[in-house]
Amino acid sequence: MVQDQSSVFDLAAVAAASNGGNNDPLLPPARYIGCPQKPSSMPFAKYVAYHKQVPFEYTQRTWPNHKLRRAPRWCSVDLRDGNQALVNPMDAERKLRFWNLLIKMGFKEIEVGFPSASETDYDFIRILIERELIPDDVTIVVLTQAREHLIRKTYECLRGAKRAVVHFYNSVSVLQREVVFRKDRDGIKRLATDAANLCKQLEAETSGIDLYYEYSPESFTGTEPEYALEVCNAVIDVIQPTPDHPMIINLPATVEMTTPNVFADQVEFISRNLDNRESVVLSLHPHNDEGMGVAAAELGLLAGADRIEGCLLGNGERTGNVDLITLALNMLTQGIDPQLEIDDMPMIRKTVEYCNQIRISERHPYAGNFVFTAFSGSHQDAIKKGLEAREFAAEQQGSKLEEFVWLVPYLPIDPKDIGRSYEAIIRVNSQSGKGGMAYLLKANHHLDLPKSLQIEFDKVVQAHADKTKREVTADEIWSLFKDEYLPVCKRGATEIDGATNKDYDSSLEQWGRLKLLNVMITSGEDGSDTVLKARVLDRGAEACTSGAKAVERTIEGHGNGPIAAFLNAINTFGIVATVQDYAEHTMSVGSDAYAASYVKCEIGEHAERRTLWGVGIDSSMITSSLKAIISAVNRYER
Amino acid sequence: MVQDQSSVFDLAAVAAASNGGNNDPLLPPARYIGCPQKPSSMPFAKYVAYHKQVPFEYTQRTWPNHKLRRAPRWCSVDLRDGNQALVNPMDAERKLRFWNLLIKMGFKEIEVGFPSASETDYDFIRILIERELIPDDVTIVVLTQAREHLIRKTYECLRGAKRAVVHFYNSVSVLQREVVFRKDRDGIKRLATDAANLCKQLEAETSGIDLYYEYSPESFTGTEPEYALEVCNAVIDVIQPTPDHPMIINLPATVEMTTPNVFADQVEFISRNLDNRESVVLSLHPHNDEGMGVAAAELGLLAGADRIEGCLLGNGERTGNVDLITLALNMLTQGIDPQLEIDDMPMIRKTVEYCNQIRISERHPYAGNFVFTAFSGSHQDAIKKGLEAREFAAEQQGSKLEEFVWLVPYLPIDPKDIGRSYEAIIRVNSQSGKGGMAYLLKANHHLDLPKSLQIEFDKVVQAHADKTKREVTADEIWSLFKDEYLPVCKRGATEIDGATNKDYDSSLEQWGRLKLLNVMITSGEDGSDTVLKARVLDRGAEACTSGAKAVERTIEGHGNGPIAAFLNAINTFGIVATVQDYAEHTMSVGSDAYAASYVKCEIGEHAERRTLWGVGIDSSMITSSLKAIISAVNRYER
Repeated sequence: MVQDQSSVFDLAAVAAASNGGNNDPLLPPARYIGCPQKPSSMPFAKYVAYHKQVPFEYTQRTWPNHKLRRAPRWCSVDLRDGNQALVNPMDAERKLRFWNLLIKMGFKEIEVGFPSASETDYDFIRILIERELIPDDVTIVVLTQAREHLIRKTYECLRGAKRAVVHFYNSVSVLQREVVFRKDRDGIKRLATDAANLCKQLEAETSGIDLYYEYSPESFTGTEPEYALEVCNAVIDVIQPTPDHPMIINLPATVEMTTPNVFADQVEFISRNLDNRESVVLSLHPHNDEGMGVAAAELGLLAGADRIEGCLLGNGERTGNVDLITLALNMLTQGIDPQLEIDDMPMIRKTVEYCNQIRISERHPYAGNFVFTAFSGSHQDAIKKGLEAREFAAEQQGSKLEEFVWLVPYLPIDPKDIGRSYEAIIRVNSQSGKGGMAYLLKANHHLDLPKSLQIEFDKVVQAHADKTKREVTADEIWSLFKDEYLPVCKRGATEIDGATNKDYDSSLEQWGRLKLLNVMITSGEDGSDTVLKARVLDRGAEACTSGAKAVERTIEGHGNGPIAAFLNAINTFGIVATVQDYAEHTMSVGSDAYAASYVKCEIGEHAERRTLWGVGIDSSMITSSLKAIISAVNRYER
Repeated sequence: MVQDQSSVFDLAAVAAASNGGNNDPLLPPARYIGCPQKPSSMPFAKYVAYHKQVPFEYTQRTWPNHKLRRAPRWCSVDLRDGNQALVNPMDAERKLRFWNLLIKMGFKEIEVGFPSASETDYDFIRILIERELIPDDVTIVVLTQAREHLIRKTYECLRGAKRAVVHFYNSVSVLQREVVFRKDRDGIKRLATDAANLCKQLEAETSGIDLYYEYSPESFTGTEPEYALEVCNAVIDVIQPTPDHPMIINLPATVEMTTPNVFADQVEFISRNLDNRESVVLSLHPHNDEGMGVAAAELGLLAGADRIEGCLLGNGERTGNVDLITLALNMLTQGIDPQLEIDDMPMIRKTVEYCNQIRISERHPYAGNFVFTAFSGSHQDAIKKGLEAREFAAEQQGSKLEEFVWLVPYLPIDPKDIGRSYEAIIRVNSQSGKGGMAYLLKANHHLDLPKSLQIEFDKVVQAHADKTKREVTADEIWSLFKDEYLPVCKRGATEIDGATNKDYDSSLEQWGRLKLLNVMITSGEDGSDTVLKARVLDRGAEACTSGAKAVERTIEGHGNGPIAAFLNAINTFGIVATVQDYAEHTMSVGSDAYAASYVKCEIGEHAERRTLWGVGIDSSMITSSLKAIISAVNRYER
């Protein structure tokens, strides 16, 4: 049903002028090593470079020298732009839930619908007004096209509201003027000013509502900035805002068409040339078609914008509106109060996913499941060291840790500040080094392995990861560790899995040759006189197999301390061992605290000699160290 | 196990100096209407503004005046950075599948792993080399930390390769120097130059491999640019690249910490001050922690970078690496050959999702399910008009449509260019206007409804959408349309659903009062003499209910054409009707073509008078128009 096509010849003219897009065949290829890239079969010549569609140069820009210094005015358009982009738009229940979330987060301006286009929106706005659900400090915004019958219906919907913004728009882009509206610049401008005049007229007929206006030159990014400015100034001239009663001029990047620096140039140009600027709240409404919506918003703020429209977690038409949560938390990481409460990200995400029925990506900034996770060994190691250094520094300063400056490698934000835990930070797979494993053993099992033991055990974990070719869970690491160092009944046994001290149940059979049954130590004036007597179960080489003979033996040794004495005593079994390194720490605080001992032993003689770590855990620090020696001996004999 | 903490006091000093982040309490709030925003409880004071962490001003920048004019050198790091960020890293099968995809897409540089850190990576690289899977024009890159034993193992892994890049890195950031490495600037620089010297030494011992180098000052974004430059120049001085045998200097935004304009300033500074610049390929490796990775890459290219490292669809540690597909298609939309084949996005996405085992978001630029979908009525209307205008202009120019310039509102790219269909573009829900419904009826059922009929039928669709509160599918729209205008047996019947002409089976019962059985028309010299005789089944008011009496009647009428004659004839039933508007079109080409007729009738007298559209479909254009009148009459009587 194509009728008057007179204007579309300009489309063809653009095609002719575009002359192969912006590809320059005379330009040498980007520098490279090896062989050059090849031309592709992609039809690039049918696309017109942005600066050929919308020629604009603004070398007077000052925005690149500015810094972000405060939160903008936030306006959530979730209930309108976000909602209209859903397969199944929200019903009243979901809308109310979203509304409540926005109120709780501290939004003071909320676009609640397009009442003249949708009965559902109309009814929802009536519910908000009639049930008095709008807090006094919150302003609702309602959207309407700049068309008479729609504007009239919009005012009808607002009756009884205390305060509201009527947001009217018309598309002003080159393309839409040509193919959709088939009007020239003056005709398009008149649509906007006619709407503004009608609004003023309807306002005069309305009473009791504190009315404000917002005008959007829709498809701003496809519009000559000079013309967009002309239309905006014409609207401002009709509305006559004042500093005490300003209006909003909103620049929609309805479709993101270029890099954010060009958008910022346009914003600065508009901001500097708007009439009655002190009475205008300059707003941006970025979309994300080229994946740069967040950047467009931030550079636009540097360029002079006061206000950002967007959606929580980036919902909205096509690729979505700009994500207000990412923007707000980017502010937070720069030490700026975002003026929004985002301290419970899991709840926010759950509510948004429920209302929108769209899942958030695992890699969504701040909200995704994986965004605080480090699998790489060097990252894990650096995070561990960074967290420790921060703890230490806070303690030195006598500062509360949760308030102390956050500077941790690979973690731009403290997960706890947005209600997320540290648990998911460190996960282990075949790409991880010892740092991750060591972190998990410390975090979950209070075991702080010496570095050389980390290297030894890491080989066990990596062999497992390379074999299974998947993530190694914290539980698996614990099983591997117990199997390697601690007395468990069978290899890989899971009977005593878990993370609490009661798991170290000494009555369970162990896999190794020796088991300590009890020990008596007498010392003289100093440690050099130590005499140690121990009862030890010796199960020989076939330890723990059914029918293996277990012999209880009493052994005795001397030395300058219990460890030396015990090493001396186990000579009885023909075992020659010396201690190379030793570390010990308590695993918790209190009377039922356990100690963990780590002993690096050299065991065996001549060609048989090997160096092995052993680990012991016991409520007694003496017993734990002896158990650690037995652990090393048992590993040697295994 | 915190040992030497002497250096971490600087962390505390930073804390003291940061002085409440970048929040300025003296700054007035952003302009607003209604009530101001409130301070939040978010702990912004613990974060340090980027320019306080890494002070740097570069007002000599020229990049904001540049335009993108060619594709950069692409390097995929999917098999390394991407892979190490997966819960379950790829096994050899998945890695090979990914490798084959990258080769097919045209990548000439692929980072294949971190062989000294992972056995899986090592083995995979051996497979590539030994099975001769690396095309002659493709260069592999292997990553290693700048540490002796890791570098040695890396060279060992490369034996037998024809050409390779050894990519060594060490972290140079302020924070990591302090809390991880505890070395001063010179010590950290020496790590890099020692590694470079070792590489040169090992190269001398290696033969048969065309070896290149890449150096990354890791955590570049957390580093004083002047110091990063110093380290890079020291490495360049050791490697001694030449224009014929260049090296790569890669600047990793390991963590995205600031706006992309600041990153671009840093890149321009480095690019202008690198020694031996003509022998250096300057590369960027952006991550996406603040959601601005794509922008960082594009502004970085404006600032002088030659090469981009990233992953397909933005996989990678935490929030991911920069998405190379978004970057490449952004180039395409600017008329630049991306030098990558991305003509089958569904296949690419499927392969990436399979290999990474991570789902792509519905709103992911270019690849997500919803990114070409318009639900909003005004968007749908504009897209429909834009597609029609483009078709018309291409035809006028005699150009092939698929090659003709692409300028369509709300669609920055032709979905077909990346292997996606138009089907999903237009979907209808309670937020949609008539444009979407009209588009779907045209696309799926070849029905091109007159605008006033669109408005009439849209009320039916909107009522349905408001009732069901979910998307209205194309099938549902078709059911609603048939139920409203076409003869179907029962309300909402689905027996004849489908989209082909055979569906219009006239033998099925219709719900309405009248049914045309046959018709005979005789005309004289001109239409004014038309006499029409028709046999009509009259089922009275209780049409289609069981037991309703159906009476066959023969009626006759006169007029200046078949329609006028038929209107005259149905007076026999006491029906008074006049035609207000009329449109007709063929639904397909060929001998079995059907015609669709749309008749707007005024029916009834005085207070009973109503205006209704009727629709008829028949192989005869006369019969279809008479059926359209019956459709309107039956709707009147319904």
